[in-house]
Amino acid sequence: MEPIVITIISGISALAIAVFMAYYVLKQTQGSERIMEIAAAIKEGALAFLGREYRILAIFVVIIAIILGVVPALGWLVGLAFVFGAISSGLAGFVGMSIAVRANSRTAAAAQKSLNQGLRVSFRSGAVMGMCVVGIGILGLSILYLTFGDNPDFLKIIPGFGFGASSVAIFARVGGGIYTKAADTGADIVGKVEKGIPEDDPRNAAVIADFVGDNVGDVAGMGADLFESYVDSIIAAMTLGLIAVFSTTLGKSLFPGIPEELAMSRAWFLPLLVAAGGIAASIIGIFLVRVGEKLEMVALLNALRRGTFSASILTAIFSFLAVYFLKADIGVFWAILVGLTAGVLIGESTNFFTSYVYKPTLRIAEASQTGAGTNIVSGFANGLMSSLPPVILIVAAILVAHHFADVYGVAMAGVGMLATLGIQDATDAFGPVADNAGGIIEMSGLPEEIRQRTDALDSLGNTTAATGKGFAIGAAGLTALALLLSYSQAVGIGLSDISLLDPHVIAGLFLGAVLPAVFCAMTLNAVGKTSFSIVNEVRRQFREIPGLMEETAKPEYAKCVDICTRDAIRQMIAPGIITIVSPVVVGLVLGPIALAGFLMGAISSGLILAIAFANAGGSWDNAKKWIETGAYNGKGSEAHKAAVVGDTVGDPMKDTAGPSLNIMIKLTAIIALVMAPVLAGFAGLI
Amino acid sequence: MEPIVITIISGISALAIAVFMAYYVLKQTQGSERIMEIAAAIKEGALAFLGREYRILAIFVVIIAIILGVVPALGWLVGLAFVFGAISSGLAGFVGMSIAVRANSRTAAAAQKSLNQGLRVSFRSGAVMGMCVVGIGILGLSILYLTFGDNPDFLKIIPGFGFGASSVAIFARVGGGIYTKAADTGADIVGKVEKGIPEDDPRNAAVIADFVGDNVGDVAGMGADLFESYVDSIIAAMTLGLIAVFSTTLGKSLFPGIPEELAMSRAWFLPLLVAAGGIAASIIGIFLVRVGEKLEMVALLNALRRGTFSASILTAIFSFLAVYFLKADIGVFWAILVGLTAGVLIGESTNFFTSYVYKPTLRIAEASQTGAGTNIVSGFANGLMSSLPPVILIVAAILVAHHFADVYGVAMAGVGMLATLGIQDATDAFGPVADNAGGIIEMSGLPEEIRQRTDALDSLGNTTAATGKGFAIGAAGLTALALLLSYSQAVGIGLSDISLLDPHVIAGLFLGAVLPAVFCAMTLNAVGKTSFSIVNEVRRQFREIPGLMEETAKPEYAKCVDICTRDAIRQMIAPGIITIVSPVVVGLVLGPIALAGFLMGAISSGLILAIAFANAGGSWDNAKKWIETGAYNGKGSEAHKAAVVGDTVGDPMKDTAGPSLNIMIKLTAIIALVMAPVLAGFAGLI
Repeated sequence: MEPIVITIISGISALAIAVFMAYYVLKQTQGSERIMEIAAAIKEGALAFLGREYRILAIFVVIIAIILGVVPALGWLVGLAFVFGAISSGLAGFVGMSIAVRANSRTAAAAQKSLNQGLRVSFRSGAVMGMCVVGIGILGLSILYLTFGDNPDFLKIIPGFGFGASSVAIFARVGGGIYTKAADTGADIVGKVEKGIPEDDPRNAAVIADFVGDNVGDVAGMGADLFESYVDSIIAAMTLGLIAVFSTTLGKSLFPGIPEELAMSRAWFLPLLVAAGGIAASIIGIFLVRVGEKLEMVALLNALRRGTFSASILTAIFSFLAVYFLKADIGVFWAILVGLTAGVLIGESTNFFTSYVYKPTLRIAEASQTGAGTNIVSGFANGLMSSLPPVILIVAAILVAHHFADVYGVAMAGVGMLATLGIQDATDAFGPVADNAGGIIEMSGLPEEIRQRTDALDSLGNTTAATGKGFAIGAAGLTALALLLSYSQAVGIGLSDISLLDPHVIAGLFLGAVLPAVFCAMTLNAVGKTSFSIVNEVRRQFREIPGLMEETAKPEYAKCVDICTRDAIRQMIAPGIITIVSPVVVGLVLGPIALAGFLMGAISSGLILAIAFANAGGSWDNAKKWIETGAYNGKGSEAHKAAVVGDTVGDPMKDTAGPSLNIMIKLTAIIALVMAPVLAGFAGLI
Repeated sequence: MEPIVITIISGISALAIAVFMAYYVLKQTQGSERIMEIAAAIKEGALAFLGREYRILAIFVVIIAIILGVVPALGWLVGLAFVFGAISSGLAGFVGMSIAVRANSRTAAAAQKSLNQGLRVSFRSGAVMGMCVVGIGILGLSILYLTFGDNPDFLKIIPGFGFGASSVAIFARVGGGIYTKAADTGADIVGKVEKGIPEDDPRNAAVIADFVGDNVGDVAGMGADLFESYVDSIIAAMTLGLIAVFSTTLGKSLFPGIPEELAMSRAWFLPLLVAAGGIAASIIGIFLVRVGEKLEMVALLNALRRGTFSASILTAIFSFLAVYFLKADIGVFWAILVGLTAGVLIGESTNFFTSYVYKPTLRIAEASQTGAGTNIVSGFANGLMSSLPPVILIVAAILVAHHFADVYGVAMAGVGMLATLGIQDATDAFGPVADNAGGIIEMSGLPEEIRQRTDALDSLGNTTAATGKGFAIGAAGLTALALLLSYSQAVGIGLSDISLLDPHVIAGLFLGAVLPAVFCAMTLNAVGKTSFSIVNEVRRQFREIPGLMEETAKPEYAKCVDICTRDAIRQMIAPGIITIVSPVVVGLVLGPIALAGFLMGAISSGLILAIAFANAGGSWDNAKKWIETGAYNGKGSEAHKAAVVGDTVGDPMKDTAGPSLNIMIKLTAIIALVMAPVLAGFAGLI
């Protein structure tokens, strides 16, 4: 049996589980007519946004594919792989979101029965997304491997696939991120702050846009993001597999006693096999997630933990088997294991810095007593501090992985970290579904008790989302680094030829380090601008629609949805284009050595900003939630008002700017890798 | 005539001007008894703080000097130079602050006569500080050169001086920064926000502590900071002078036709001579600063601009002469010029991003309409975006300087950028004096019209402080880079032996990049904790002292001063120690190559955070000031309340965390340089 059959089977299994989960979700009852009406509006808005977004992306994808095709050093097969990657990523996002917008009403209905039922429906809809991402990812790569594995240009073609996935991801994450936070912030500012009406109140014209945003940003955007991480990490390992089979540093082959050509093909194949093992482990993990009827955060969290933890253990076992059967050096297994372990620990660290069970977040809540200013400073300091443990863990992973299996080990550590993505994504993607369900319950006036159930799920979703973010960032750092290592090999400058103190490297490094800052500034401003439009529109409706406040008239929800769609799509263009153009310009103008410096600068500064933003945002959010449980006089107190400001600041940081950075650092690295054949032997213009 | 005489003359001239200016300030009248009483309390608090701070620092300095002395590769001369550097830095800060605390009451009295008189007194007191910094700096280095210039260990000894200056600077900046912002924030939270009394109201117990803070943080702390920049940039150029006289990259000597030994000594001497030229230029510039009676920001700003601009032109001319007479390659002059120019342009860029004359700050004011949340996000985005132009300018300066004069050129660009420090520091240091004077006027109940004059001066001081900060950060980046280049030479690993993709370099780079984030988190938290204590104390006094609010009783100012002193000193220790210990640990554990990566990571990420923090803070402050001029319904409006929150957030960022980063990146680099003899030939533990 060809070993590639294993990865194809695992991909098909993942999709089969996705179909099974989707079938389960869709056969649930949708609840009352009112619920169905709201859900229909959300679905319509979300699909309309995705449609418009994909139309723009289609044009973009065609243009880039043509450019790749006509550049002599690249060619049409690279362009084709790019299109294939773009479509795969778009497909994963689309399928996941299509289920999510159907699962929200069904979760609302299920929560009326029991908490467990609510969790099951929402988690299974998240699992559809998780399984689609990994299934499509591994199938796409396997198809490329089957079709072009023997093509001498395979090493050019496969980064094209990653480039396609990354390009769609950056636009989807930024566009969706702008949408979701602008709608959320806009709705809150007029609703909660100015008019004093509760969150998700049907009188608020932006409320449907807010729900739509959860789906386009936190489901579709995140799906594209994780798809990118997943395939890029495998691609980095595959490309390094070619050149690093014999480690000169260690003075031995990583596939000892195996003829070179066979060893290479095994080094290519091992990452796919580890990923396949991770899929199997994730599937088992997903079925282990279940919970009793107690409304306790700890019980809920433990249910999910059981799933992800089991999946990690199983992945380690499967990876060992993969290494064993392919007769790789045991060092490769240690590299995979250290990546897997670092990923779990980064998740724990994120949890420590963002959950209100621990001191850091409690301190932010405490600082809220003296006002919004101290709340903000405290949260921001917490975010900055929280970047330390992940960086130390990543550094440790790099040093250990490199010690055991050279640069190939670094890439395999990234693959190990991302192998359990199937279940990680499932635990992430159910959050927005539960959030939507809660909103629908609020809007349709169901009893408080039911809302409490979805609130518990939502809160759980926040925690898992924070953990998932930390893990995604860590993986992005390792993956981008592995891509950089591949780039330096592909461009033929050799690992030791790039002097840190070469002025071109320094120039590139400084420019790379500033890119994440500029990128964040642009995305934060985009959220600001769009939410400003939303605020004005909601205010206008309250002013001009008679009887709106008294609930005798309905707001024009569609107007806000339209504004968000239009603005988010318009404003996702510039940050995306800048990310794509910068490495190209640096590479062509300052040369391939400067580009290596540029990538390193972008990775190091992007990593820290991404962690700081994600965790500051998460801890502000949870500090507010902690006060809402009654601390410092609870809801409505001065401390609470201060905490709401912190939450508003954190929202675009944690859900727009921060996560987009993950994509950004990988995208710049994969562009460098795609450009490598063009830059080889080229010295730069200045 | 020995050319060293020129630098000694310039140093003595600077000190003579300082004495002249100090005499001018001290002979002014102090005004009413009430004014004298307040001024005495400020002076007492400031000197008490400095006394306690210096006592702690003395212990620290002795310990480090002993360590340096007993390490065989270093020796007692290095320890001695360290003590000398520490004392010089402390002295510059002490003298500058001693005048500043005497100038505030005199500025208050002078402002009663006219605006011009107020500017003259405050600016001349700032000039004392500026002249002390450059005078003591160049004299200290000249003395070292005269004493040890022939000693074969000179290259070990001179970084010891910089290390001493940097160590004092980090504690002074952090301690003073915590003090000033904690007192400021604490006073504002209870006074302005809770009790609704105006700023600087005598009923507020923290008001004297706030004034003291301006002196210990913005005068003494900044003096130590700039002293460090100044001497470190010269030291970097001197050490590079030794090894880079013959540029292998350019294939020529930078002192063509001159015997090697003589060329070396000239390469050592040139930075001192350029600095001497800058001092002469600054003295002339200072005398060109004068203004009419119009209360116009533009007129005031132009007066200062005339001074700094003339000084820059003159410095360029003097530098050309220095290069010409020492018969250096003309390329060295271009390197100096590009540094000088980049410094001026960085200042302009800072001005653009922080002054309310321009769009970025106006946009923050606009965003305040929708609340504190949008104000914060907008300001933060502005700060991040503002890091782009300085980074591009620094990159351009590095590339150009390196193109013309190799690594020596990079160091000389740093010297060129800092040559006009004498006047730059004067324009910086007068701000807090004017601020203090305004506070004294408010507290002693003088007419509104006089307060308006000091307000105009204060506002001018804010703008020049922002420009000065941008310039200091840019200079810090270039200086730290030059120190890193010196380090790599001194440790004997050679410029081309440090591979960017070596896992140890990557590990070092990531750890270095995270250090500024951790450092900022610690300093921000320190401000938060201390201001929390102040808030509680001020609240307690309002609660427990009968008749305080009705002004029949006086608050216990000294209590707040004591708390600030105690807490600031206690909390400056940890960030300082971490900064000093990190490079030592990285160097010893991961080895000298990792340490080079560490420095590069710290420089790139520190630079960006420092610029972002300084400019975000400056623009929040000025957005608030813009609203106070009447925009968006002016003072007391909702927009104003939101802008006050932004200002509170920005304060510790721009005055504590941000500026300390400048010192941090240079300190880590100079520690590496000092450690170089220890690390040479050592591979690290892992």
